[in-house]
Amino acid sequence: MTDIDIQTYMQTLGRQARQASRALGRAETGVKNDALLQIAAAIEQSTERLLAANEKDLAAGRANGLDAALLDRLELNAERIATMAEGLRQIAALPDPVGAIRDMAYRPSGIQVGRMRVPLGVVGIIYESRPNVTADAAGLCLKAGNATILRGGSEALHSNMAIAECIHAGLRRAGLPETAVQVVETTDRAAVGELIRMNRYVDVLVPRGGKSLIERITQEATVPVIKHLDGVCHVYIDDRADREKALQVALNAKTQRYGTCNTAETLLVAAGIAESILPELAERYSAAGVELRGCERARALVPSMRPATEEDWSEEYLAPILAVRIVDDLDQAIEHIETYGSHHTDAIVTEDYSRAWRFLREVDSSSVMVNASTRFADGFEYGLGAEIGISTDKLHARGPVGLEGLTTEKFVVLGDGHIRR
Amino acid sequence: MTDIDIQTYMQTLGRQARQASRALGRAETGVKNDALLQIAAAIEQSTERLLAANEKDLAAGRANGLDAALLDRLELNAERIATMAEGLRQIAALPDPVGAIRDMAYRPSGIQVGRMRVPLGVVGIIYESRPNVTADAAGLCLKAGNATILRGGSEALHSNMAIAECIHAGLRRAGLPETAVQVVETTDRAAVGELIRMNRYVDVLVPRGGKSLIERITQEATVPVIKHLDGVCHVYIDDRADREKALQVALNAKTQRYGTCNTAETLLVAAGIAESILPELAERYSAAGVELRGCERARALVPSMRPATEEDWSEEYLAPILAVRIVDDLDQAIEHIETYGSHHTDAIVTEDYSRAWRFLREVDSSSVMVNASTRFADGFEYGLGAEIGISTDKLHARGPVGLEGLTTEKFVVLGDGHIRR
Repeated sequence: MTDIDIQTYMQTLGRQARQASRALGRAETGVKNDALLQIAAAIEQSTERLLAANEKDLAAGRANGLDAALLDRLELNAERIATMAEGLRQIAALPDPVGAIRDMAYRPSGIQVGRMRVPLGVVGIIYESRPNVTADAAGLCLKAGNATILRGGSEALHSNMAIAECIHAGLRRAGLPETAVQVVETTDRAAVGELIRMNRYVDVLVPRGGKSLIERITQEATVPVIKHLDGVCHVYIDDRADREKALQVALNAKTQRYGTCNTAETLLVAAGIAESILPELAERYSAAGVELRGCERARALVPSMRPATEEDWSEEYLAPILAVRIVDDLDQAIEHIETYGSHHTDAIVTEDYSRAWRFLREVDSSSVMVNASTRFADGFEYGLGAEIGISTDKLHARGPVGLEGLTTEKFVVLGDGHIRR
Repeated sequence: MTDIDIQTYMQTLGRQARQASRALGRAETGVKNDALLQIAAAIEQSTERLLAANEKDLAAGRANGLDAALLDRLELNAERIATMAEGLRQIAALPDPVGAIRDMAYRPSGIQVGRMRVPLGVVGIIYESRPNVTADAAGLCLKAGNATILRGGSEALHSNMAIAECIHAGLRRAGLPETAVQVVETTDRAAVGELIRMNRYVDVLVPRGGKSLIERITQEATVPVIKHLDGVCHVYIDDRADREKALQVALNAKTQRYGTCNTAETLLVAAGIAESILPELAERYSAAGVELRGCERARALVPSMRPATEEDWSEEYLAPILAVRIVDDLDQAIEHIETYGSHHTDAIVTEDYSRAWRFLREVDSSSVMVNASTRFADGFEYGLGAEIGISTDKLHARGPVGLEGLTTEKFVVLGDGHIRR
């Protein structure tokens, strides 16, 4: 396709999405749930077809020399397909956020004013190789009453198109327009360039993937973006911490999983408790295979640590590595977090009431925690149901983004012929 | 100043604002209120000085040939100064949104999760000639716990600096850092270019002014923008409308004030009621001095109307002109609003329950109304207190933006040594 063809093609998708978003916006909860269950059934019934389409992508990927990690992300198998279907059923079971009205109240003028929760409209999802995102993201957007335009990685195109067929079958059976979920069928990069600037047809972009993808889209998009950048998360062990809780939380936050954005990457320890806790903690980390990189004061207590460099304080390792710094007190801990952190998730371990509340108030992160592992920062753990991502932005949606983050509110005014004086 | 000097200067303002935002974020409600009252007092006590500074701007404006409307917006007088001070006192009287926690609940894992309302951080305000914005915007941001960087029009620089002195005096007396409110002291345009791309130091931009200013900033900014573009507002008179209410609402929405964004610019009338209501309505509009521009069907009933062109349907007149179209029914009315409207404020006049609810659900505007004048779309009328603007965006803040729109929420997690399994 030429660039002009792509522009025309994307504009057509956009126009169709806008049109479909109006049907979805007024669709009853039962109809949306029916569509989700029908899609889940279609996916399960199409297991063979999905595997065959995925095999094409995998073969091409192998031929193109994709590395093992990428091939793993690209792969569908019977279990992953069942998980996709199950995810859609879970979304169907969530309460519908659309149409809820809050704070309806009479004003002195006689009008009643409140706010109604409504869909955003059209959501553009840009993602990389995982084909399951096609079903997960479309499902969440559908439940929130939004139309979606999905642009997956070119290496997953056959898989994504096969999943889209199941989605369309499900929408059709529920009586909703197929254009409610559209997969971009060209792998040309110009399609992304067009998508992120179609302000007339697209209300918000949700990019999912590596940091370079997110940064590029943020720089170039004129459509607003809900995004996740880094997770440089901290655990601060205060000198009034309970020793056992501190050991538990600090270990869990780092070692429960290494590759996730809510894993702790820096441990801050108050000077007053460092001598009594750091050596034992270092031993336990070491037993778990975690490499420690410490400041000078930390290394004085645990000489086996590698010295930390300035870069270590802002590094998202996503690996069994942990930066360790001894700080004088809560003030220095907060200062460190505000200077080097990514405003994602930070935790304090303390028994001190005032310090716990100061930490909650003053640390400017999407999740702040007392005596709990940073690994809890997750849509399911928070009770939001599935999440479309974790936002490190401050506007609109912050932290795990579930159905509510895919909606907005408008003002509703009821009068009886009221006019302004 | 050279461009490099300006960059350094703006970065310094940014760093100072970020620093001050932390002091403001943890400031007690009483301290913030005290600052607002102190600033109000300082403004009143400085009336002479403010008038003198303003006279400099006015003299320069006259010398530069500014038009009468612009000079009027630029002018301060004793009454306007008193209004500024009164506005600050009203902001002091509003409830503090910061720190409120909602939906705190236990999760199956044992942690408690809720959301805490917190300041956005640093707000950049870019505005044109009205010097009162300096006090209004800074006051609202201050109450919401944000630091501000204010960039007013170059023609109002002396006035703005004089107001800033009062603000600094008030902040000082309340024990808050003066850098909580900073006025950009250069009129170089490069300063704006820097401000709108300082993502590290500025969390959100609120441009206030004409459409070209807003569009330029939206195109060039990498910092998120809360903005107001057009107000192409509609009143739809359904054929099940109460005749008297319809006359009242349609007249008030257009004629109560012409230059405001929530003034109706297009009147839609259902074919079934047009013959009985449009001629009388046309007479009343005519008596009020409003020029009507109608579709063919409207002109068949009121031949004195000028014919409307396609452009009229999307025009924000801000003047005593009204476009009039006869539509078949509610569906065509909604279709018209979605096609030509600006998603600001739209009203239906009807006694029909189902149609009223369909209109509320399906019209995708920041305010939707039944049997009430569009002129009610306003922060004061809605009970938000003062507003920093009316957002026509969908994300974060939609409709009148008061204190809540200048804050965000973060997740708060309370545990007792809880770890993720």
